[in-house]
Amino acid sequence: MSEDIQKCPHCGKTVKVFRNPVPTVDIIIAIDEQIVLIERRNPPLGWALPGGFVDYGESLEDAARREAEEETGLLLTDLRQFGAYSDPGRDPRQHTISVVFTARSEGKPKGGDDALAAGLFPLDQLPAPLCFDHAQILADYRKSLSAAVTEDR
Amino acid sequence: MSEDIQKCPHCGKTVKVFRNPVPTVDIIIAIDEQIVLIERRNPPLGWALPGGFVDYGESLEDAARREAEEETGLLLTDLRQFGAYSDPGRDPRQHTISVVFTARSEGKPKGGDDALAAGLFPLDQLPAPLCFDHAQILADYRKSLSAAVTEDR
Repeated sequence: MSEDIQKCPHCGKTVKVFRNPVPTVDIIIAIDEQIVLIERRNPPLGWALPGGFVDYGESLEDAARREAEEETGLLLTDLRQFGAYSDPGRDPRQHTISVVFTARSEGKPKGGDDALAAGLFPLDQLPAPLCFDHAQILADYRKSLSAAVTEDR
Repeated sequence: MSEDIQKCPHCGKTVKVFRNPVPTVDIIIAIDEQIVLIERRNPPLGWALPGGFVDYGESLEDAARREAEEETGLLLTDLRQFGAYSDPGRDPRQHTISVVFTARSEGKPKGGDDALAAGLFPLDQLPAPLCFDHAQILADYRKSLSAAVTEDR
């Protein structure tokens, strides 16, 4: 843990607080052969996987279901962990650690909360720019799909 | 994110700070047919997988290599993510989210840093008590080994 400095709102002096990387979730939601991306309302602007911060006292799986519903209106089935992404530079604002999930859903996503809009995209026709390390996550996801197909043969 | 209350050390008034679950790593280190466990120096007392807090600015993989070396003296090869464990009650002290890794090593583990001792144990002869949710993690690990053997047939 490293320390962060905050100012006391009462006396203005500095208060040391422990600073940890911040846990987040992102969800790769497949509907038929397409995946759901949201257009971000806040910087960094662009397209991204639905996701967000994990609340204190909330499991990763609960956070994934909550964020998916808040940002896209979708309910998830077949929620599974895909992998954790923790490069300190992955989010320009602060060091976040994202556990990425895969899930399935049905219907039409509707942007809500931090999402201006939500859309469905084939994996080989993704919009730009993709924020954070989401292009890398989606490249890893495509690779995992190809590997699964090869194993099935 | 939820809020936590700290007292300003200068004026004694309360300062609100954001509180997030705290990211940790744990590592299942296999040496030949046994795994490495450490005896904890601090409460909760008992045996546990080597692991600890992820520093701000440090990747999960770097944290896993650092904690393994600090607590057991071992260098890791074949480091892979196994899964993330985030039940809010998994650590009695605070809400932690652990990304668990598997790895291989060689030699003899030596307890250091937060570890009083380190030992090698067959998966069917684990010491007690096992702290946190590490009995569950190791049960999941045994299941994954059985599944891998079945797939290989």
